[in-house]
Amino acid sequence: MENKENSSGGENQPSKKGLKKQQKAAEKEAKKEARKQAQGEQQVSQEEDVSKGFYGNMPMIRSTERPDRTILDLKDLTPSLKDKKVWQCFFVLRQQKWTIQALVCVGPNVSKQMVKFSAGINKESIIDVEGFARTVDQKIESCSQHDVELHCEQVWVVSSAAPRLPLLIEDAVRPETDDVINQDTRLDNRILDLRTTTNQAIYRIEAGVCKYFRDYLMEKDFIEIHVPKIISAASEGGANVFTVSYFKDKAYLAQSPQLYKQMAITADFDRVFTIGQVFRAEDSNTHRHLTEFGGLDLEMAFKFHYHEVIEVIGDMFVHIFKNLRDNLQEEIETVGRQYKSEPFKFLEPSLVLTYKEGVRLLRDNGVDMGDEDDLSTPAEKLLGRLIKQKYDTDFFILDKFPLAVRPFYTMPDPTDKKWSNSYDMFMRGEEILSGAQRVHCPDLLSERAKEKGVDLEHIKSYIDSFRYGAPPHAGGGIGMERVTMLFLGLDNIRKTSMFPRDPKRLSTP
Amino acid sequence: MENKENSSGGENQPSKKGLKKQQKAAEKEAKKEARKQAQGEQQVSQEEDVSKGFYGNMPMIRSTERPDRTILDLKDLTPSLKDKKVWQCFFVLRQQKWTIQALVCVGPNVSKQMVKFSAGINKESIIDVEGFARTVDQKIESCSQHDVELHCEQVWVVSSAAPRLPLLIEDAVRPETDDVINQDTRLDNRILDLRTTTNQAIYRIEAGVCKYFRDYLMEKDFIEIHVPKIISAASEGGANVFTVSYFKDKAYLAQSPQLYKQMAITADFDRVFTIGQVFRAEDSNTHRHLTEFGGLDLEMAFKFHYHEVIEVIGDMFVHIFKNLRDNLQEEIETVGRQYKSEPFKFLEPSLVLTYKEGVRLLRDNGVDMGDEDDLSTPAEKLLGRLIKQKYDTDFFILDKFPLAVRPFYTMPDPTDKKWSNSYDMFMRGEEILSGAQRVHCPDLLSERAKEKGVDLEHIKSYIDSFRYGAPPHAGGGIGMERVTMLFLGLDNIRKTSMFPRDPKRLSTP
Repeated sequence: MENKENSSGGENQPSKKGLKKQQKAAEKEAKKEARKQAQGEQQVSQEEDVSKGFYGNMPMIRSTERPDRTILDLKDLTPSLKDKKVWQCFFVLRQQKWTIQALVCVGPNVSKQMVKFSAGINKESIIDVEGFARTVDQKIESCSQHDVELHCEQVWVVSSAAPRLPLLIEDAVRPETDDVINQDTRLDNRILDLRTTTNQAIYRIEAGVCKYFRDYLMEKDFIEIHVPKIISAASEGGANVFTVSYFKDKAYLAQSPQLYKQMAITADFDRVFTIGQVFRAEDSNTHRHLTEFGGLDLEMAFKFHYHEVIEVIGDMFVHIFKNLRDNLQEEIETVGRQYKSEPFKFLEPSLVLTYKEGVRLLRDNGVDMGDEDDLSTPAEKLLGRLIKQKYDTDFFILDKFPLAVRPFYTMPDPTDKKWSNSYDMFMRGEEILSGAQRVHCPDLLSERAKEKGVDLEHIKSYIDSFRYGAPPHAGGGIGMERVTMLFLGLDNIRKTSMFPRDPKRLSTP
Repeated sequence: MENKENSSGGENQPSKKGLKKQQKAAEKEAKKEARKQAQGEQQVSQEEDVSKGFYGNMPMIRSTERPDRTILDLKDLTPSLKDKKVWQCFFVLRQQKWTIQALVCVGPNVSKQMVKFSAGINKESIIDVEGFARTVDQKIESCSQHDVELHCEQVWVVSSAAPRLPLLIEDAVRPETDDVINQDTRLDNRILDLRTTTNQAIYRIEAGVCKYFRDYLMEKDFIEIHVPKIISAASEGGANVFTVSYFKDKAYLAQSPQLYKQMAITADFDRVFTIGQVFRAEDSNTHRHLTEFGGLDLEMAFKFHYHEVIEVIGDMFVHIFKNLRDNLQEEIETVGRQYKSEPFKFLEPSLVLTYKEGVRLLRDNGVDMGDEDDLSTPAEKLLGRLIKQKYDTDFFILDKFPLAVRPFYTMPDPTDKKWSNSYDMFMRGEEILSGAQRVHCPDLLSERAKEKGVDLEHIKSYIDSFRYGAPPHAGGGIGMERVTMLFLGLDNIRKTSMFPRDPKRLSTP
């Protein structure tokens, strides 16, 4: 570390690298200065340049050398000493979610030419700076590093951005700017859009969702597996499936890892989870549908009752919510500054209601629906609000869905065939998990498939997989982007998919 | 826990559930007994059955009830007390990787009918038993629970296997049985094949590879991202890519997450990793090619030199190898009992040689090849053996590949265009990672694409993604199944892919 310290107070001289020049907070002044300098350009360029060799465009880094120099990250810049000087050009440096104010001031080691060069660097360029960290008298509210600014003595452009940007970060991060910069503009310029502190926070939170999902399940002896996405027969029936050319054959993209996680259970792995992309060729252009999304899937054998599984999943969500709340508080607040929402509430243990109870609550509040009708999206939303009012939770589990609205492999209720051993889980009134006890008996499975009009020929190998001893089991599939979106109270799933795919969007930059 | 203990020694009465009946170790005796019983069948069936209600076929578990009963896992069965009895039928119960010997003996609570029923249960059926755990005088070498056997007083079939099995677990797990049960038979009956203790161990080790990959990178501030598999243009050129029908468009399956992880870097995420399936439409029917495999990908911005990245990846592999060795020792030994191999050796820090040095070593040993020739598969294998002899390591890194053999986005060496800032990593002489510093400057990238004959029109958005400031960066992609295969010294990648896909295999059961 190239820190110099003297006993009279300490001066830190960090090298700064890979920073993005975000905005000239005093752009006007800088421009004025630039103009003044342009007028006197000839004089300036003829003046001796005391800063020569301390600024400029760096040659492309091609790993030519590896200097013995430690680079300080912006987040670690929080030092002490004050100092005063007249300065001439300042700007904001950004690195991931951290920002700092930087100055270049004419002085013994800094020439006018260097100041002019610095003022002219294109926004979003990546620069290396060397300078002194100085504390400030007044907090710099607009930067993450409030108490310190950087007095530059070297300024090098590592990678210059184009002079005109299709999207300005300071606009993209402003609260409620969705009307000004719409989702498509953002996605068409995703690289810039992802540089906002909001997006830097969102994808750290999404990584957290996966981490806490895995941590909890591994702790409970679940084994992580990896299953193929190219399959020979549509996993959830023929509709909404993408077809793939497989050498001379036709194949499909898996709509879920359903078959494979069940096979892992019948193969005696007892408890498994898998994280991977799943694909739905559904022409749904809504705020919550993607054609490809992150599936967090789990499946487990149980002893007596599928409620053993509901409890594990419910506790797993509590684990995820708690850890996001406690370990990613700063990120949640960052997102909240751009997109306001109420903090996510949950109960411990999780609230479980039956489908019947849910329908009753809706009917009591004016919704006209039959016992076994499927829940419409507005009804789901309303149910979420009613349950929030009544139980003060944004997360709940709805158990015992009507058999008619579930796939053929769902175990019917043992006493009443109107119902089934299946469940959905909801966050802020939107479904984020669908699951059930599966039929593990080949005869009942064939019978159910026939009743549902599924061609037995197509699912022969699936049915046969239960002929060598299969334990009772249940599980579920979770939409990763939905969990992140709804935990943060966001309004569009494209905000939580780094490079989203929908019927109209097949590429992201 | 339904354990009864008395001061005279302690008797454990565990309930056992979800166990698979593996083999009747004393099948002959059992059969003899069954025959004897059959002869006296009429008498037996007329005898009063003292065991009535304590054995039989259980009704399908449909979550009817949830008795307040704790089920003991087989692995936890290690108790004390001895006891002696004359017994009549014994078999082996298996649960994941654990096995135990169980007996059903005629006595005050066990009828001849019950013994007969037990002897007739189909292999691989799932059964619940209740009984006393008893220590044995002589170690039961054939079972994982050496010191204890189970004296059953209740035997219930939860799920009966078909009477004839296409594959016997005891055959499938025998050392060097690949000639008897070939890979295709195994994969055609994957559910049974996966029940071997060997496979139970292999997929726990593979889960470990992913866990330690993630643990190390998260510790080093890498962020996990998820990237789309359906893409609008082939990521690594047009060859070997699967096509997908995307509504009215044509799309492709990603051959790697290359473009997207680089975009995450230019979007200022600094260090990212992603785990997901990748797809290669390559008609290669070899021991180490799959058309779909688990990709462990990482990418990071660096300060001065791509060797910063090589060091991180090298240390990451050491972290993986050490943790597998230390935490999954039992699983490694289990695999070794069926497939013999030398323990995997590695150095700390990892050995890095240049391509030139590798070629020199090969030439010194009789291989005829030019400086810039690509390594053939046999040459790679030989190099692995030579390096093992010389340096005593099964893992090494080969740095500075000829530019000609690498993709257009590889950074050329800054001083000699014959070479490039790229590297491969090897385990037991087979490539498991390919990586490089990437070209982060749009002009050089266009120039390199032209030189390689890549159509600039197809990669416009990729090139444009570097126009808004891009840090120097490097990374690599790892084949998950190859790491597991080569760590264990296995001979076929189909042994480490739970449900493998190759040009000839599109389904697993």
